[in-house]
Amino acid sequence: MTYTAPQKDMLFTLEHVANANQILADIHSEIDFDTIAGVMDEAAKLTQDVIAPLNRLGDLEPSFLKDGKVTTTAGFKNAFDQYTQGGWQGLSHPEDVGGQNLPKLLATACMEMLNSANLSFALCSLLTDGSIEALLTAGSEEQKQLFIPRMISGQWTGSMNLTEPQAGSDLALVRTRAEPQADGTYKVFGTKIFITYGDHDLAENIIHLVLARTPSAPEDIKGISLFIVPKVNVNPDGSLGAPNDVQCLSLEHKLGIKASPTAVLQFGDNGGATGYLIGEENRGLEYMFIMMNAARFAVGIQGLSVMERSYQHALSYARERLQSRPVDGSAREAVAIIHHPDVKRMLLTMKSTIEACRAMAYHAAGLSDIAHHHADAEVRAAALAQYEFMVPLVKGYSTEQSIDVTSLGVQIHGGMGFIEETGAAQYYRDARILPIYEGTTAIQANDLIGRKTLRDGGAVALSFADQIGLTVSELNQSGNASLTAIATSLSAANAAYRSVVAHVLAHTKSNPNNVFAGSVPYLKLAGLTISAWHSARAALAAQAQLDAGNNDGEFMTAKIQTALFYAQHLLPQASAIASSITEGGEAVAQFDVSGFYS
Amino acid sequence: MTYTAPQKDMLFTLEHVANANQILADIHSEIDFDTIAGVMDEAAKLTQDVIAPLNRLGDLEPSFLKDGKVTTTAGFKNAFDQYTQGGWQGLSHPEDVGGQNLPKLLATACMEMLNSANLSFALCSLLTDGSIEALLTAGSEEQKQLFIPRMISGQWTGSMNLTEPQAGSDLALVRTRAEPQADGTYKVFGTKIFITYGDHDLAENIIHLVLARTPSAPEDIKGISLFIVPKVNVNPDGSLGAPNDVQCLSLEHKLGIKASPTAVLQFGDNGGATGYLIGEENRGLEYMFIMMNAARFAVGIQGLSVMERSYQHALSYARERLQSRPVDGSAREAVAIIHHPDVKRMLLTMKSTIEACRAMAYHAAGLSDIAHHHADAEVRAAALAQYEFMVPLVKGYSTEQSIDVTSLGVQIHGGMGFIEETGAAQYYRDARILPIYEGTTAIQANDLIGRKTLRDGGAVALSFADQIGLTVSELNQSGNASLTAIATSLSAANAAYRSVVAHVLAHTKSNPNNVFAGSVPYLKLAGLTISAWHSARAALAAQAQLDAGNNDGEFMTAKIQTALFYAQHLLPQASAIASSITEGGEAVAQFDVSGFYS
Repeated sequence: MTYTAPQKDMLFTLEHVANANQILADIHSEIDFDTIAGVMDEAAKLTQDVIAPLNRLGDLEPSFLKDGKVTTTAGFKNAFDQYTQGGWQGLSHPEDVGGQNLPKLLATACMEMLNSANLSFALCSLLTDGSIEALLTAGSEEQKQLFIPRMISGQWTGSMNLTEPQAGSDLALVRTRAEPQADGTYKVFGTKIFITYGDHDLAENIIHLVLARTPSAPEDIKGISLFIVPKVNVNPDGSLGAPNDVQCLSLEHKLGIKASPTAVLQFGDNGGATGYLIGEENRGLEYMFIMMNAARFAVGIQGLSVMERSYQHALSYARERLQSRPVDGSAREAVAIIHHPDVKRMLLTMKSTIEACRAMAYHAAGLSDIAHHHADAEVRAAALAQYEFMVPLVKGYSTEQSIDVTSLGVQIHGGMGFIEETGAAQYYRDARILPIYEGTTAIQANDLIGRKTLRDGGAVALSFADQIGLTVSELNQSGNASLTAIATSLSAANAAYRSVVAHVLAHTKSNPNNVFAGSVPYLKLAGLTISAWHSARAALAAQAQLDAGNNDGEFMTAKIQTALFYAQHLLPQASAIASSITEGGEAVAQFDVSGFYS
Repeated sequence: MTYTAPQKDMLFTLEHVANANQILADIHSEIDFDTIAGVMDEAAKLTQDVIAPLNRLGDLEPSFLKDGKVTTTAGFKNAFDQYTQGGWQGLSHPEDVGGQNLPKLLATACMEMLNSANLSFALCSLLTDGSIEALLTAGSEEQKQLFIPRMISGQWTGSMNLTEPQAGSDLALVRTRAEPQADGTYKVFGTKIFITYGDHDLAENIIHLVLARTPSAPEDIKGISLFIVPKVNVNPDGSLGAPNDVQCLSLEHKLGIKASPTAVLQFGDNGGATGYLIGEENRGLEYMFIMMNAARFAVGIQGLSVMERSYQHALSYARERLQSRPVDGSAREAVAIIHHPDVKRMLLTMKSTIEACRAMAYHAAGLSDIAHHHADAEVRAAALAQYEFMVPLVKGYSTEQSIDVTSLGVQIHGGMGFIEETGAAQYYRDARILPIYEGTTAIQANDLIGRKTLRDGGAVALSFADQIGLTVSELNQSGNASLTAIATSLSAANAAYRSVVAHVLAHTKSNPNNVFAGSVPYLKLAGLTISAWHSARAALAAQAQLDAGNNDGEFMTAKIQTALFYAQHLLPQASAIASSITEGGEAVAQFDVSGFYS
């Protein structure tokens, strides 16, 4: 099963939902929309022709560890060379460290393609991006110039070393030690687990970014620093020295993303791994959180990507598989199952969820571009606040939905979906890590409540409700039956969303157990409502195109009907979720855990 | 991770939800409730000590085919011998064919244990049961006496051969041929796929029941007959003759239930496999459907079982894993994650769904006992109609929920859930087949609409709404805050359910595409509402126990709170689902499939 980048929908979404033309005019006047489209076309070719065909092979013949060395799936090294030599790793990074300084809007569309093509392969790039972001945030000028250009060129890659056996979601429990040396370096000792691309053979060196404690550090969350620990020591001129004291002890046997090597790394078993402090001591988590917004957004895109791949696979099968006569008696022979109402319903659930999540993510990417590059500081600040609100939603909502959508992808295949050779099951297995890594959905939801809703008294949260209200008016004024039906559903969801924001604001301090019992439901409600809002905005734009005589009427009509489906089949859950939060918090808070029998 | 049969909840459910005492008094006066409990205790020992420990091993070292022979996982043969020698295969079958004639109520509880212990192992018994049911339904007296006692003793097993490459959900497309011979036997030719335990080494023979067409048969769904085709030919005295012309060509590589051998069987490559007609020609599907009600119910129990196993696994982890301080500031150190609101919410989602599905399934089992054994024909007929309505719900709802619940089981483990060694991922993989085999959820939903709702003008469907109404009154009259809160939610769900039954009755003929777009949502709505009804009945019974001074107050209180959680967190979806059916059917029906881009 191949992959075809859905460029038409991507371009429509960039133009009509993410306001790409306006953003380009404001902050990237050196490029125009055609340039965006041209770059995407190149990304489509590389991901479709080179990277996507390796996806199933990576599942069958994962990376493996032998004699202390990790070998990746055959073909990955060649694909990685093409990817980095094409300049894709530096697409949105600054020019002064070797990047191309292109907008996140474009990078997001390309990232979607890369991840649809091959989640396991894409992770190397995702973690390298994260490491680059951390260095850009807090590294010294010397560190930036030494490491980042070589990470962009593909000579080296990056890895993020946070988790330890006792410290997962709770990084306060990190125990890895970093002892200062007379020359200003540190000796690092400890064990890190779940290190994505913690070892591999795609590049000559790996720049591990490692959370560790210095001897004088406080014992809590405030005593954690961030270090550069290269796999192979690096001389000041960038040439390689001796191997550092870092060993890959093992790779995990995982449910999915099997080609991505997930390493247990041992630092310092032979005298200490040489490390270099990034920024100031004890500020490691702060730097990490800045970087993590980028990584969390990227994992949200992974959710979108795996849904799209699963959808294309199921759609292809549904068009070919003949089974049963239509229920309306319109044919006397078995027809392709795509014509059966329940298969159409499943495909529309997939398609509408994908398009809504894409619209939400691309719109957020546009906010990020404005936040970082707009000339007006107030505009930047407002966009940053909105973007940061969106990160837990893009991450949490898109990845949670990816479980359901890839499950439907299996279901549409019937019994064949359960057979590994078919390939549909791989997406279902791969997707399952997405709501877990880079912060579980519960961690995203805590962030949504704590940093993103309470801290500003709900200002940003409610600003989205206000914007949705404007869209509802616009839909109602259209006089179009589909659009007004969308308005009815969106308006009800928006009221549910408002009621929950009010509930969170009113009760978190006085009754945190009650409110946090609804944290993940709040995230799902917000993600559902805001993604449906963007889906509705897409429908408005499609209707405007039809009214203006756009000659791709089939696409525009399908766009409106897809938004209508999302509004009528998925969005009604908003009220149910709101009720579970506002009415059901006490049922969780008051339940005594001794009542969980087994 | 071990398994502990939840006997306390099972016994509570049998007694207070499934009305076991009344049913035993009416139709099984030879046994009392203590006998039931005693048998369950024996089943618990066997499943916990012998069968459950093989579950993970079966995933790691599945059955395999070599030189034409299938070898099952080490330990399966010994466990199978203990299972069959203990009389478990014949638990609910008639005494005159070697069974024990015990109620389905009891058999269902034991079946739940067996499947929780090991889904893959249990499938051999499930398919043998199905084959026995088919023979009991339509076999000649000679066939029954020749085959069934040996299938109950474990000397032989059974398999069901329906699917062919082009004929999955659509059995009208079956092409396997059966040519009549002068001696009254048939020669069978064809290829069958997805044959569970189609070959194995647990017993000396396999009695394949095979759907095939005779030369004179109509070419449609009305031209299919059912045949016995033994793996090894059987002499009239039951001794074995020469091997029959049946070969196992391959075993599938599956996402889950790996230890269960799923065979491609080739019949008749060397002159024709000897087969024996069951019942009359061209009535094969009719016999198969009677049998399938039993098999579908059993797959519903599999959904319940895998949820329970996944829950126990996650609960155990949540009690041990220390991570993060509580949100209410009640401790300064990391606590077991079971104390975190979102983990409690996930565990309550699992527990409440399991208990509601158990209540629904056991209640249905009681209806089956009444339907088959009550002295009064009218009572039998009424119970049969209700039981048959429940079969697609037990099958469809419990198995769809098992996807979500086993997914939560992974999520509670965080990153460890994605590592196969942890074991949580196996349930997520195993569960994925359950909404597919023995009729996909869409097939169950078609059955629910066509045979179970329309055929009697909604009489049985609405009789459930009436019964729910009575329970709502009872809850409201209790004066208890938890019970009245449950009543509020259940009453709203019941109204939603009534509205959808009315919609189905009114529009299926005139607009089938619209109504069938809501078929699976209707099934989910009915399953959700009726399972919540039984959950509420359990809460009423628990309150009555508390009022009567029952000394297991902790269990009874947890029971009520669990039902409250289900009513407040899951049941509100009922209205959303109803809206998607009644408002959203047109959005699916009118969508032109050319609008599915890729």
